Amino acid sequence: MTVKQLSLPELVAECVRLGVPGVGLWREPVREYGVEAAARLVREAGLEVTTLCRGGFFTSDGWEAANRAAVDEAVALGTGTLVLVSGGLTPAFPDLPSARARIAEAIGALAPYAAERGVRLAIEPLHPMYASDRCAVSTLDQALDIAERFPADRVGVVVDTYHLWWDDRAPAAVERAGAAGRLHAFQLADWTTPLPAGVLNGRGRLGTGAIDLRAWAGLMERAGYTGPVEVELFNDDLWARDGVEVLEETLEDFLAV
Amino acid sequence: MTVKQLSLPELVAECVRLGVPGVGLWREPVREYGVEAAARLVREAGLEVTTLCRGGFFTSDGWEAANRAAVDEAVALGTGTLVLVSGGLTPAFPDLPSARARIAEAIGALAPYAAERGVRLAIEPLHPMYASDRCAVSTLDQALDIAERFPADRVGVVVDTYHLWWDDRAPAAVERAGAAGRLHAFQLADWTTPLPAGVLNGRGRLGTGAIDLRAWAGLMERAGYTGPVEVELFNDDLWARDGVEVLEETLEDFLAV
Repeated sequence: MTVKQLSLPELVAECVRLGVPGVGLWREPVREYGVEAAARLVREAGLEVTTLCRGGFFTSDGWEAANRAAVDEAVALGTGTLVLVSGGLTPAFPDLPSARARIAEAIGALAPYAAERGVRLAIEPLHPMYASDRCAVSTLDQALDIAERFPADRVGVVVDTYHLWWDDRAPAAVERAGAAGRLHAFQLADWTTPLPAGVLNGRGRLGTGAIDLRAWAGLMERAGYTGPVEVELFNDDLWARDGVEVLEETLEDFLAV
Repeated sequence: MTVKQLSLPELVAECVRLGVPGVGLWREPVREYGVEAAARLVREAGLEVTTLCRGGFFTSDGWEAANRAAVDEAVALGTGTLVLVSGGLTPAFPDLPSARARIAEAIGALAPYAAERGVRLAIEPLHPMYASDRCAVSTLDQALDIAERFPADRVGVVVDTYHLWWDDRAPAAVERAGAAGRLHAFQLADWTTPLPAGVLNGRGRLGTGAIDLRAWAGLMERAGYTGPVEVELFNDDLWARDGVEVLEETLEDFLAV
């Protein structure tokens, strides 16, 4: 998503050229390109699909079919991790307690289907500024409270610095997740202000914002995380630029941090 | 601030006409009008000044003189409560741990000066989306952790629904604050999306957003809060309208909720 201006073949070719060993994919471009074709593309390039983003939105109608399809796509792409953005308030679930209860219930219903297919569900807490319209799961502790109702190899959590950096309880929650074997994905973005209207597409380049990204990397390492580290920047300015240039720059930023 | 388009004399006259018994004032319009003149205006109208907003910004240079002046202005206005917006990251305090430590230290230095003058310091946790640029104190628990280093009649907290609504730990923190006698102010605004650029001026009219305001009022009541309830809407659309109309509408919304 950081370089969504690139086509899938361009993305895969540039990752290979730059020595990036894996990539997190989003469902929309994969489906546009064709799931089987996308799977063949990454497989033939020797690229790991680190995660598929995203299932979730459990407070909306049709969540079950949509999420089973997302699991199937993850299987096709060869990734074992489906990231879940759980959904916000809807007419049927108009307040946070009811939305959060629904999310836990839906994950419970989805988990066996995913487990049978070898896909882990990774609950991503989103920043509290998205609590009403995208994700009622706002803290790592909340995500873990849900995940811990299920076996660790079925349901875990995503640690994304952009969403969690402000939370003084997050470091302890990372340790808690690590001890339970539930750290399923790690994503980096920096926090820069002012936020743009809608607050979706203002994630900062690594090293340009308020987050101590090295501290987060150390925290994850001490908690036993050894998986891939993804860089996920939603940023209108970056999307307006040449995608190859942005990919190169992002890799430089990543290595510098 | 909800009707900042009104002059202070207009605001005071309209509050009296509508039977609003008290008003929270902001420093800037008070200073523009003249502190002594503003104090006389509200006193002669029989209006209570519920709080003065705001002191704080402890991570910036010059905080001590600015905050002592704010205390003096609170005394002149006859309010016993100074609201503190604690400040975000600055070059001198570039990360959250150092900023939070500085905030606690500065409040400790300011508290005796305020106490001698009969002014309580009320720490306001701001929504985590302001953590980097306005207030590194993001949760009620964090605010209480600082407040509890000092006597309850010197340092307490502000509960503002806009900032705290998303936090599943906030209800327990309200109880904790109430039991300790530290609930010093209660402010209402509703949460509406999409957020505007800069995320400062998009607070929703009561009853138009995601927050269960009645539940919050009940929570505060059960925690023993009997003080004033302020409505604080920063909203460009409301500010563009006739101030008297907005004040009347806000009062209707308040009574309806």
